[in-house]
Amino acid sequence: MFAVEVTDHIMVAHSFRGEVFGPAQELHGATFTISAAFLAEQLDDNGIVVDIGRAFEALKAVLAPLNYRNLDELPQFKGVNTTTEFLTRHVFDELAAAVRAGKLGRAPHEIAALRITIGESTSARAWYEAPLW
Amino acid sequence: MFAVEVTDHIMVAHSFRGEVFGPAQELHGATFTISAAFLAEQLDDNGIVVDIGRAFEALKAVLAPLNYRNLDELPQFKGVNTTTEFLTRHVFDELAAAVRAGKLGRAPHEIAALRITIGESTSARAWYEAPLW
Amino acid sequence: MFAVEVTDHIMVAHSFRGEVFGPAQELHGATFTISAAFLAEQLDDNGIVVDIGRAFEALKAVLAPLNYRNLDELPQFKGVNTTTEFLTRHVFDELAAAVRAGKLGRAPHEIAALRITIGESTSARAWYEAPLW
Amino acid sequence: MFAVEVTDHIMVAHSFRGEVFGPAQELHGATFTISAAFLAEQLDDNGIVVDIGRAFEALKAVLAPLNYRNLDELPQFKGVNTTTEFLTRHVFDELAAAVRAGKLGRAPHEIAALRITIGESTSARAWYEAPLW
Amino acid sequence: MFAVEVTDHIMVAHSFRGEVFGPAQELHGATFTISAAFLAEQLDDNGIVVDIGRAFEALKAVLAPLNYRNLDELPQFKGVNTTTEFLTRHVFDELAAAVRAGKLGRAPHEIAALRITIGESTSARAWYEAPLW
Amino acid sequence: MFAVEVTDHIMVAHSFRGEVFGPAQELHGATFTISAAFLAEQLDDNGIVVDIGRAFEALKAVLAPLNYRNLDELPQFKGVNTTTEFLTRHVFDELAAAVRAGKLGRAPHEIAALRITIGESTSARAWYEAPLW
Repeated sequence: MFAVEVTDHIMVAHSFRGEVFGPAQELHGATFTISAAFLAEQLDDNGIVVDIGRAFEALKAVLAPLNYRNLDELPQFKGVNTTTEFLTRHVFDELAAAVRAGKLGRAPHEIAALRITIGESTSARAWYEAPLW
Repeated sequence: MFAVEVTDHIMVAHSFRGEVFGPAQELHGATFTISAAFLAEQLDDNGIVVDIGRAFEALKAVLAPLNYRNLDELPQFKGVNTTTEFLTRHVFDELAAAVRAGKLGRAPHEIAALRITIGESTSARAWYEAPLW
Repeated sequence: MFAVEVTDHIMVAHSFRGEVFGPAQELHGATFTISAAFLAEQLDDNGIVVDIGRAFEALKAVLAPLNYRNLDELPQFKGVNTTTEFLTRHVFDELAAAVRAGKLGRAPHEIAALRITIGESTSARAWYEAPLW
Repeated sequence: MFAVEVTDHIMVAHSFRGEVFGPAQELHGATFTISAAFLAEQLDDNGIVVDIGRAFEALKAVLAPLNYRNLDELPQFKGVNTTTEFLTRHVFDELAAAVRAGKLGRAPHEIAALRITIGESTSARAWYEAPLW
Repeated sequence: MFAVEVTDHIMVAHSFRGEVFGPAQELHGATFTISAAFLAEQLDDNGIVVDIGRAFEALKAVLAPLNYRNLDELPQFKGVNTTTEFLTRHVFDELAAAVRAGKLGRAPHEIAALRITIGESTSARAWYEAPLW
Repeated sequence: MFAVEVTDHIMVAHSFRGEVFGPAQELHGATFTISAAFLAEQLDDNGIVVDIGRAFEALKAVLAPLNYRNLDELPQFKGVNTTTEFLTRHVFDELAAAVRAGKLGRAPHEIAALRITIGESTSARAWYEAPLW
């Protein structure tokens, strides 16, 4: 399996509900370093998985509504804990939709899976990987 | 599959037996950067794989008996080469026991697998990944 | 000149006032990676600049009141923009006081200067360096 | 599954054909950071996947004909786009041949798979992973 | 002294003349990771050294004519070796001009110095630092 | 001032004497990541500070007697604590001698200063910088 992965970052505020989170129940924030990997069994005729320029654009389009925001106030996240794990799945779902809509410039079914990795500090990160079909 | 990964490090001395190790047959040492990833099919009700605080504690508890020690003198490692690969498996086994004992604060069977990655320098690392059940 | 530098991180929320900040006028957040370097002309009799354990503790003591907080709500930061640059100076001043109070375990005048570096993402950081005397 | 991974780098020039590449159709270049991971179900009697010294040598032997060269002029790459993805597969094929020829110092069938990862910048990388048998 | 530093990268081809360069006399290439630090004695009224957005734009404006190009063919570099060191000075001179032209949005004389750092691989980098006045 | 910096690493065992070192009084070890920066006011006619190949060789020659060794047993370190700080000075002195002996391939007096940086983990490092003349 081939993969191409692009990386960007966002700076957000949020807070968590639940005793398990301890001090992170307070409003705090994070620089999230977000990597999106597109996986394919075969390269296309140009010798690529997907156009890396489009991959950066697709990731940036998913991140733009979140960047420099307080995630607690965004309607799409109402009532959920926007944990690092939750956000890996959110980015996955949005990018999966972009793939299926043909926005990556390759026949959707030729992209087999996505892996989204989000680093919250130099010592903690999360990822979510799943097939698209 | 979701994963949450935490990272810590230890500073140890050791030596290896076997001609294949060349100069590493001498007593030398390493800063090992150790990442432990906990994998799960589903997030829990808090939106997490495991409590990251507990994950750091569980990893630290496994590493504490090794940190600032000469691994050649530890009884649990008698007669083995404490290679980077061997240590990935040692940390895996200890953390697997912690998961099964419920120390990560989640129903053990909901944690599907572990991946332990150990970097010995900026140009060499090893990992071990296996399902828990 | 010798230096010893230790690194820790905090996760905070904040917002800025002033058009120059564009979208960062909204409440957002950051993982700040904070390095504190202690500079000295000579090593002490143990062959160190300062005890690295004390250096970590001194830095952590400065960061604890900020970690997992909304900096906009802290009384000590009332009416100021808690920019990365501002925070380098804040950490400098607090650690300088710790040095002068002898908390680093070395005669204060033997520590010549401090350099505080704060990374806000993989592509932006700030630092402040000044002599202590 | 165990893995051992070694990392090296090369500095090359090349250009791409195809509108999808935009400005990268011009002759440009890259520092490629190349990691080769050798995967095995079991460690050998020395407690290793493969001798790390041999792994570095095998990777270096694959990279030497490419380093400090214009890839557009190498006969083995005539008529292809030497994309990061393409190069992951090229390195994979060459290292797979080295494994099969016994150059890693372990019975070939005991090495189950290879994963080649190539970083082209801090924000983009590609990988190729496949079983050897 | 305060500093704010922003980082970007370019992918270029070039070759060197002179036996000292060995294999780098061949046409090859590099991903250059370029950091530009702006130094100032005092923060401005907003609590910043310079607007980080303008700093990124100023650096990008300097790098744009070089990115995805063969430096050997650029008229501004005719007859010179575009070594990493040379490029630190080139970026310095261009950014110094931008500062003097007021493009960083702060009174030019309030910016005391620049430091340009260019990494060519994980094991080699160069920098150039000088006062502006 | 220009600088060129090269980076290598060693894996060593050692122990410290003195209560200040706590658990590090035990025999332990470290992967030391060692960067050597050569500083010069002017580039030479080739457009470089020093030949980077010679810089790597000079650093490797200094490190070879230490790599894969127990520093406690080396006669040159008898009776001293081989702290990270101490080692920055040791590498400085050895490389300064190499510069003065003309081994860097440039007129010695044209190299103004050296800065040696040694990382012992991702969260702690030391450096020593001084003029050569």
